[in-house]
Amino acid sequence: MSDGIVLLVGAGPGDPGLITVKGLEALRTAEVVVYDALANPRLLREARPDAELISVGKRGGCHTMKQEEINALLVAKGREGKRVCRLKGGDPFVFGRGGEEALALVEAGVPFEVVPGVTAGVAAPAYAGIPVTHRGLASSVAFVTGHEDPTKEASDIGGTSWRLASAR
Amino acid sequence: MSDGIVLLVGAGPGDPGLITVKGLEALRTAEVVVYDALANPRLLREARPDAELISVGKRGGCHTMKQEEINALLVAKGREGKRVCRLKGGDPFVFGRGGEEALALVEAGVPFEVVPGVTAGVAAPAYAGIPVTHRGLASSVAFVTGHEDPTKEASDIGGTSWRLASAR
Repeated sequence: MSDGIVLLVGAGPGDPGLITVKGLEALRTAEVVVYDALANPRLLREARPDAELISVGKRGGCHTMKQEEINALLVAKGREGKRVCRLKGGDPFVFGRGGEEALALVEAGVPFEVVPGVTAGVAAPAYAGIPVTHRGLASSVAFVTGHEDPTKEASDIGGTSWRLASAR
Repeated sequence: MSDGIVLLVGAGPGDPGLITVKGLEALRTAEVVVYDALANPRLLREARPDAELISVGKRGGCHTMKQEEINALLVAKGREGKRVCRLKGGDPFVFGRGGEEALALVEAGVPFEVVPGVTAGVAAPAYAGIPVTHRGLASSVAFVTGHEDPTKEASDIGGTSWRLASAR
């Protein structure tokens, strides 16, 4: 019935030149582009003129569409046989909730691929001249979300980051 | 005397499609390409036919050129007025020792730019379907080098990773 596929694409940290070659190709060939507010709007000019562009507008706590609705949208478009580019800021799997979208697609039997992106957690310090690791100074780096699931009973973060800090 | 510039470019985790658009542009316009073994050799076909290609062949413990020699090479080529692409596997600032190369260029007064890349630490698990963070399961992620400076008196890693593990 369907040749649909969903490509979960990391748009990078903001600079449109920091999308990958493969990610740009996915964007340029997609029939449907589902994008959030973190992706640079200039990138959308790369989409096909006849592509359907759908904003799901995630930015901080203010969501145009709930995650469950986004998952359902991706599944529906995939089942329609569409080639879908899910354009996400940064990397889809680093605090991008790409894992939840991937799971929903697996459960629905819709083919998908992940196109990793440049993580803002690395690129933002790099643009400021700060390497996140440096031989002799930092042998490890930790990325910790600032937006945990608010329905959680307890945070997973405090203990870990405290221990990380106290280990130095 | 010189319009030289050194672009510290992350080639991504191996798939040549995972270099960024900006990184590919840097590679295609460079007069000198200084690359290590971790960068995919197919990428080198993108270089100008007249570009000087210099392998500095880092792979694990076996280095063709010492880091200090690589730093000196980048400084020398920059001072010759060349447009240099320093092509590194993954991201130049995540265990790529890009920080040391950047410092050497700063000290020598040679202009440089950093073009971040997709980190192998994120992309390799992603290709295997493993998100490094997942809402409800993992709110943080740590990347820890497997190749610390062997001249260090003590490792910085053991304590940190033990504490990270024990925090879960």
